[in-house]
Amino acid sequence: MKILNNRISVSTKGNEDFLNITQQLNSIFTESGLDNGIVTLFVSGSTAGITTFEYEPGLIQDLKEFYDKIAPSNVHYHHDETWGDANGFSHVRAAFTGPSMVIPFEKGRLLLGTWQQVVLLEFDNRPRKRDIIVQLMGE
Amino acid sequence: MKILNNRISVSTKGNEDFLNITQQLNSIFTESGLDNGIVTLFVSGSTAGITTFEYEPGLIQDLKEFYDKIAPSNVHYHHDETWGDANGFSHVRAAFTGPSMVIPFEKGRLLLGTWQQVVLLEFDNRPRKRDIIVQLMGE
Amino acid sequence: MKILNNRISVSTKGNEDFLNITQQLNSIFTESGLDNGIVTLFVSGSTAGITTFEYEPGLIQDLKEFYDKIAPSNVHYHHDETWGDANGFSHVRAAFTGPSMVIPFEKGRLLLGTWQQVVLLEFDNRPRKRDIIVQLMGE
Repeated sequence: MKILNNRISVSTKGNEDFLNITQQLNSIFTESGLDNGIVTLFVSGSTAGITTFEYEPGLIQDLKEFYDKIAPSNVHYHHDETWGDANGFSHVRAAFTGPSMVIPFEKGRLLLGTWQQVVLLEFDNRPRKRDIIVQLMGE
Repeated sequence: MKILNNRISVSTKGNEDFLNITQQLNSIFTESGLDNGIVTLFVSGSTAGITTFEYEPGLIQDLKEFYDKIAPSNVHYHHDETWGDANGFSHVRAAFTGPSMVIPFEKGRLLLGTWQQVVLLEFDNRPRKRDIIVQLMGE
Repeated sequence: MKILNNRISVSTKGNEDFLNITQQLNSIFTESGLDNGIVTLFVSGSTAGITTFEYEPGLIQDLKEFYDKIAPSNVHYHHDETWGDANGFSHVRAAFTGPSMVIPFEKGRLLLGTWQQVVLLEFDNRPRKRDIIVQLMGE
């Protein structure tokens, strides 16, 4: 059993910049040489999330509209009184989306679906540098 | 430490067919003979999710109504322009629900609550065959 | 590789009592002496969730209002007909929030962001005792 710690580093534009990180993940996985186990993805921070979806422009737009509807950016948040950085909506979106995801791999293959990409969801209202933790555990 | 890869294969009817897969999971776990560790559940695909809830008809109906409210099936999605398969709502629901779940086990017992069942959430608008990945890691 | 099973035990007041369990988690992690691996958090039960956010009063209030909006407590739920315990909204909130989270650690450090706390989300409508499972796997 091996444990390998890696990072995927990206720069986001803020404001619902959703970034496909599948290629970087595949590179890390291939270089690891591992056959069976799990990869844990984790975004350190309180204004971003991580999930999977079919990364195409129509759906990206749909998801932006979805988040705008259920946690709008143009209404009052109590969090904004605390810090004055006007990103209360970013924190709410990140909290219910969740910061972690675990993907199993088997016989040297990451078990994602054909159209299933791994995506960083930037919810903050300004550009950010993000280091997504990619930890492989397996053999 | 052992890593054991399994599948739970189900046929869904589409349109919010929520399937209780707890019994199949328990069978796989019992056969593994493992005592301590984690089971990672992962649904490969972009139009289904996985979670836990008390699997009874009233709550199943409540969850269907919840998803219909926050990501309705009868409104326009940009994704539908891309592919013309009219399941944009399915993709949105799957993206924010998430494809993975990790359940720990201890002393030969899966640590689910008494009323807590593991459920596949079929969000697609047509019947699908689903292979849920069930990977055990432990000793 | 070691697998260490622990619990964080808390008493909640019900009705969206959101409890910061980061300090207890840090204590368990420090005592483990592990350097690299994952910690799996899991809440056994169908009316609570677990996530991370910046634990400050403004945001706590924002998240309460968010959950009240997308799964209100004052509307009818079919689940309430089944059991008569009037907590259908609690089950819906828990189901889409999810019961598990996995946090990686590296070189003896849990990889949470500076302002990112681990929080138990009590969704039930009455006080509960909760044992959050904290399983460490690593070396």
